[in-house]
Amino acid sequence: MSNSRIYTAALIVIGDEILSGRTADKNIPQISKWLNVQGIRLAEVRVVADDIDAIGEAVNILRARNDYLFTTGGIGPTHDDITVDAISKALDVDVVIHPDARAMLERHYADKGGLNEGRLRMARVPEGSELIENRMSGAPGIVIDNLYLMAGVPHITAGMLDGLTGTLEGGAPLLSETLGAWAPESEIADVLIAAEKAHDDCQIGSYPFFRAGKVGANFVIRSTEKDALKACTADLKAGLEKAGYEVTDGGI
Amino acid sequence: MSNSRIYTAALIVIGDEILSGRTADKNIPQISKWLNVQGIRLAEVRVVADDIDAIGEAVNILRARNDYLFTTGGIGPTHDDITVDAISKALDVDVVIHPDARAMLERHYADKGGLNEGRLRMARVPEGSELIENRMSGAPGIVIDNLYLMAGVPHITAGMLDGLTGTLEGGAPLLSETLGAWAPESEIADVLIAAEKAHDDCQIGSYPFFRAGKVGANFVIRSTEKDALKACTADLKAGLEKAGYEVTDGGI
Repeated sequence: MSNSRIYTAALIVIGDEILSGRTADKNIPQISKWLNVQGIRLAEVRVVADDIDAIGEAVNILRARNDYLFTTGGIGPTHDDITVDAISKALDVDVVIHPDARAMLERHYADKGGLNEGRLRMARVPEGSELIENRMSGAPGIVIDNLYLMAGVPHITAGMLDGLTGTLEGGAPLLSETLGAWAPESEIADVLIAAEKAHDDCQIGSYPFFRAGKVGANFVIRSTEKDALKACTADLKAGLEKAGYEVTDGGI
Repeated sequence: MSNSRIYTAALIVIGDEILSGRTADKNIPQISKWLNVQGIRLAEVRVVADDIDAIGEAVNILRARNDYLFTTGGIGPTHDDITVDAISKALDVDVVIHPDARAMLERHYADKGGLNEGRLRMARVPEGSELIENRMSGAPGIVIDNLYLMAGVPHITAGMLDGLTGTLEGGAPLLSETLGAWAPESEIADVLIAAEKAHDDCQIGSYPFFRAGKVGANFVIRSTEKDALKACTADLKAGLEKAGYEVTDGGI
């Protein structure tokens, strides 16, 4: 029997570099796709500045209304890495040095000059935390309560997600099917409405594009129920064909 | 005399396709960079689902504490395009058909079968709105109070931003300089702190990377004051060189 409860997560992307436009975020899609596989839905994302109060506000609202809260960024060695301080303040716990994190960093930097003040910063955690193993670099991720503090650099985040795979309780994974048609979105709006109305447990997203001088759209049908997904996809395909459009399974 | 007030904007990215990981957002960096040129700082971003209440909550908080609030997505012709409904509800105004938008759409679709229910949806606005010209497609953007409703498709958003250029009051643009060094971030944390402490009106961001088997970092110095920026950049460069690293102007 599938678990029908919907598990949700929120994500806080921490970093002035995203807000300034200097860096394009890659962690939103990466974490979202990983969550889908765990049966957890990404419900909301906030991008906040490197600012203790801005981070704290987002943390306390989002951790209360989601099963899980992820953060990316701000756990490195420099002065602008303040995620641990901000989250400790939000949770009203002390910042402490985690002995295992310190040991990991000592091993990692053994032949690179050893620990210094900046490197030791990466062993700081909110009191009561556990570590997330990180095979990509010496610095670990951090878990406390339902919070998961991840790196900002996408390939390091990927390594941390890998270490977490299968450890979070989720529900039925969200399944999806895609159909594509060279149909102007504005022509087939009623077909989409009809298909979605006929299948309560499915959602349909419509994603228009303009390519090679022609307009078209892909339609993504989402559901946690395999049979419902299949039925809704079939109905939508029939509706689009009845409206005179050729439909491509899997999207265009 | 430069305008020393800091103008801020927030952005709400509306769309299940971003939260599901299907589509990687491109509007955050695009809008952020455009705002920088207008002398407006992007202060916070939220990504929310296609959900009336989720959009409304974000709209009312963010419009109150920022000079400007932008939204992207959900102003197209289909059933999942609910931005106008959500914002009208949040502002407690009616949804009306804007006569100029209707006329634009009639012209645009004159030789494509004319208006239908889906296409006419794109003329719906919160009562009291003005339009943002959109040279890329028939559908206009929408301005009401300090809210700017933009398309989700990045190149259409770009056309709308182009139409808005120079029309928003801003302060002094945020200027930046970049320095790069093949220095492990964890080695030069104290140099960064010293440079930032010595220049109150500057911020330094540190962005590590790992390339060709070596670690390095770029350092972005930001300020609205040209002279302060120059002085801070020079100090940081001298500090990094004193620590034994070769520094590349403009970043690596």
